[in-house]
Amino acid sequence: MNIDIQRSPGRPKQAEHELSIQEVILQTAAQLFMSHGYEPVSLQQISKACNVTKPTIYYHFTSKAELFKVAVTTMFKNVHQHTSGLLRDAEHLEEGLLKVAEARLANPHAEIETLLREAEKFLSEEQIQKIREAENQIYEELADYFREAMERNILRKNNPMLLAQTFSTMMVIGNKNETYSANLGKEIVEIFLRGTLLGSPASM
Amino acid sequence: MNIDIQRSPGRPKQAEHELSIQEVILQTAAQLFMSHGYEPVSLQQISKACNVTKPTIYYHFTSKAELFKVAVTTMFKNVHQHTSGLLRDAEHLEEGLLKVAEARLANPHAEIETLLREAEKFLSEEQIQKIREAENQIYEELADYFREAMERNILRKNNPMLLAQTFSTMMVIGNKNETYSANLGKEIVEIFLRGTLLGSPASM
Repeated sequence: MNIDIQRSPGRPKQAEHELSIQEVILQTAAQLFMSHGYEPVSLQQISKACNVTKPTIYYHFTSKAELFKVAVTTMFKNVHQHTSGLLRDAEHLEEGLLKVAEARLANPHAEIETLLREAEKFLSEEQIQKIREAENQIYEELADYFREAMERNILRKNNPMLLAQTFSTMMVIGNKNETYSANLGKEIVEIFLRGTLLGSPASM
Repeated sequence: MNIDIQRSPGRPKQAEHELSIQEVILQTAAQLFMSHGYEPVSLQQISKACNVTKPTIYYHFTSKAELFKVAVTTMFKNVHQHTSGLLRDAEHLEEGLLKVAEARLANPHAEIETLLREAEKFLSEEQIQKIREAENQIYEELADYFREAMERNILRKNNPMLLAQTFSTMMVIGNKNETYSANLGKEIVEIFLRGTLLGSPASM
């Protein structure tokens, strides 16, 4: 679990203030990059949206590529943390998946492979790898959840990682605004669950 | 069914030659745009990949945005035609979906909403609409297929368009090279079908 963001009680005001600016830059950058891609978003645009100067961005991040890497990995870490909490607090599999689905569908964003293919020529191997590692932790979390459900004979045996990626991929449908309905999460989770449950779907 | 590409028998040689160059440009452009996005791909790059000059591209297409529109809609029309043929020739629902899934997974490409969000500031409303119309015909084709299966009591009642978009979205998993296995299509179709069939999945 990532707790970098939690501030230690004795931390001085100045550092707290800096952390806050850095967080604003990261969240704004992630939102812009995930909406429009890497190249179309300029540091100018990010600094304007954050109401800071470009040198402030360069004070915190050495380059646009580095900002992209940190913004996207931080976003993935937050999604991971949030997903983990939702699954842990849910009373059963369906409730957990439904909460995760609703959170994802309410925050539609770029399909990561499409985004990375556009961005990769501007990024170093190391930057791409860090992003993939952060993304992978979300799949691992879901895969663990599915593995446990298989061990408890709730889901039929399958590759847990494939189920994690299938479930996550299904959430990309949230990008299609026209299909969005209040019931979309429930409908998608129902298809997924009936498709993966052990035994008859009539038992749901 | 789109048959624009079919040449009328009396068409002169010159036109045939021109059509062929145009097709090469369209296919190459579609492949590059779908791989890297709109802005990162230059007309220079497309003309080089096609072994033609930039003026040749401008002879056929008035602008990069127009080339993008025609390339992407033509690709969607081809996917539509191909999908339609696969579904029509299949002996049953599972076979049809499996063939469509295998064709899609073997040709991973950009998730269209992510691509359009990156490209939209360079495109006119009309260009975006044409692309969406062409894409929608693929969903309509699948939705018709699902509607028919519902009427024949093979699939349980659901929104056919939602099923079409869910099925198509699941194919985005093909973008993740690391999960690709010879059985991926079969595994995804099985989850989808068990999730949507009327009655017990044990009957599959």
